[in-house]
Amino acid sequence: MDMKDVLCMNTGEGESSYLLNSKFTNVTAIKSIPTLKRAIESLFKEESPPFEHLLNVADLGCASGSTSNTIMPTVVQTVVNKCRELNHKIPEFQFYLNDLPSNDFNTLFKGLNGFVGSGGEEFENTSCLVMGAPGSFHGRLFPLNTIHLVYSNYSVHWLSKVPDLRDEKGNPINKGTFYISKTSPSGVREAYLAQFQKDFTLFLKSRAEEMVSNGRVVLVLHGRLSQDFSCEKELQLPWLILSQAISRLVSKGLIDEEKLDSFEVPYYTPSVQEVKELVEGEGSYAVELMETFTIRIGARNEGIWSDARGFGNNLRSITETMISHHFGPQILDELYDEIQDLPLQDFATQCSFVVGLKRN
Amino acid sequence: MDMKDVLCMNTGEGESSYLLNSKFTNVTAIKSIPTLKRAIESLFKEESPPFEHLLNVADLGCASGSTSNTIMPTVVQTVVNKCRELNHKIPEFQFYLNDLPSNDFNTLFKGLNGFVGSGGEEFENTSCLVMGAPGSFHGRLFPLNTIHLVYSNYSVHWLSKVPDLRDEKGNPINKGTFYISKTSPSGVREAYLAQFQKDFTLFLKSRAEEMVSNGRVVLVLHGRLSQDFSCEKELQLPWLILSQAISRLVSKGLIDEEKLDSFEVPYYTPSVQEVKELVEGEGSYAVELMETFTIRIGARNEGIWSDARGFGNNLRSITETMISHHFGPQILDELYDEIQDLPLQDFATQCSFVVGLKRN
Repeated sequence: MDMKDVLCMNTGEGESSYLLNSKFTNVTAIKSIPTLKRAIESLFKEESPPFEHLLNVADLGCASGSTSNTIMPTVVQTVVNKCRELNHKIPEFQFYLNDLPSNDFNTLFKGLNGFVGSGGEEFENTSCLVMGAPGSFHGRLFPLNTIHLVYSNYSVHWLSKVPDLRDEKGNPINKGTFYISKTSPSGVREAYLAQFQKDFTLFLKSRAEEMVSNGRVVLVLHGRLSQDFSCEKELQLPWLILSQAISRLVSKGLIDEEKLDSFEVPYYTPSVQEVKELVEGEGSYAVELMETFTIRIGARNEGIWSDARGFGNNLRSITETMISHHFGPQILDELYDEIQDLPLQDFATQCSFVVGLKRN
Repeated sequence: MDMKDVLCMNTGEGESSYLLNSKFTNVTAIKSIPTLKRAIESLFKEESPPFEHLLNVADLGCASGSTSNTIMPTVVQTVVNKCRELNHKIPEFQFYLNDLPSNDFNTLFKGLNGFVGSGGEEFENTSCLVMGAPGSFHGRLFPLNTIHLVYSNYSVHWLSKVPDLRDEKGNPINKGTFYISKTSPSGVREAYLAQFQKDFTLFLKSRAEEMVSNGRVVLVLHGRLSQDFSCEKELQLPWLILSQAISRLVSKGLIDEEKLDSFEVPYYTPSVQEVKELVEGEGSYAVELMETFTIRIGARNEGIWSDARGFGNNLRSITETMISHHFGPQILDELYDEIQDLPLQDFATQCSFVVGLKRN
């Protein structure tokens, strides 16, 4: 399957649309703001800031845009304040909002009304130009040497494709599941890591070509603090739950076991160490900032999901296209209904980290 | 009514979608290619071409993109050939595809698959970056001093709003019609012209800020060769036909006469002379090229519409949102069915012109 066609969040504004189910990634975006501000401020610490009249900012994997609507005002506010403090001319802002061409850009653009042309109510006199940039971030998206700031919230752990998980006879090796689960043989983890290494390196190389020297990158990733995958609930909870629901449909005879065996999700939760090593190996950046945070998913106090229905809708908004493409659209309602029957106390703490890079 | 919400071509890929009904504007785009090529070639005649590593091109009012798919390869081909001839380094291309935020950018982006990242099959090694630029071209869209080439096909004759056509007592003066028709009093024409003057001047001013010195503009417009509006069939045929259909629905009691009296279309067909005077008055550009052409609409040999059904679908793809907003969605099917009953021999020759400007 080609990820460019099937890896897209649900469109529109309905109950299972990504727009109405992006509270979780809004929380991760908000948690990344202090690091983003520090990265922007460090742009001004260079002998000569790498921008003058125009600041080009890329938001990669923006989906329907609720995160962009948090991030864009933060960038404008931080830059304007710093310019005033240092008596630097306030630049124009060009925001490139990127996602795959199958993304719902119509909903994204409709949500930007107050922002295009100016920086929203608070910064009326600031010139903000907003562009949609359709394409895969595992390749070139922007002109050479033009981008000053790259941001990406909860996207870079998605892979460009699933690893090939068949043995020499062509039989699937990750039977009965579709991610790095406790029951997966060790080759599964290695194959996923190899794909992430390839994809993340290509991501870094593409951005390195597009960025100006001393530009900054801020990436928010679902990741691991330790090297091992033993804490499955914290690392793979959405897949664990989706897996339970799929298993029930296999038991009911609604999903063929072989169909499950050949399914994999293009998703890898890297460790802090793995990311650092890949950045060093690629060679164009220095790791400047590294922050970790956890989110109790399912807990009412984070205000994300108050019940399993909310969690189910969220999971549906992210995985429906992929599931439908592999298993067929006829199983969708039954599958996501299963998830809503799961007990809320199963939910867990999810680790994430924010990494700040400086382009050499 | 706010044009940003209602002035949009029909979405999707169905029978009355703009995508399937854009043959007419494809023909006008193709007819503009010689002028576009000359404008691009003249970029190279400057002592130093105004671009080096990157050529920024804006396509304004691109709708679902079938025209962009004609124009982008033309730009790439012309520039690459000229660069080879003059031993000039081939630049990267950044195409900004613009339309109002309510435009169907999803369909636009899905149609670009072969082009994003490279210049399509023929120019595989050329780097082409394609962006969507949502916003009104009657205002700023792009960063200051960055755009080298502006193109717009059959869009700039659309106005940002309809003129206020009421007398001092608040009564409509353009009764029984909604455009500059034979029966309209002279104040109607003056009010439309005043709105066009205001909009076109703002269009020129906004582009002047965004363009580099010696950049080029190519605009394809529905227009008049003479100063008068007497040849209604050649100038306003789509409105004449829509008007006949609306009148029939008024006779049938399906449309209220007062509702028709308060309806106007935000569209003005300028004369060559009017455009030249506005360019001179604005002061940032010189008129470099001016070509006129005619299209026999309805004639089989242009391959646009072979019957009234095709013409009706085309008119529907352009006007449905506007009509629905003013008269209500319940009349749509009946209205456009009326158009399909009209005899094909009513169709006429439509005048257009291509104007090439040089930014001082």
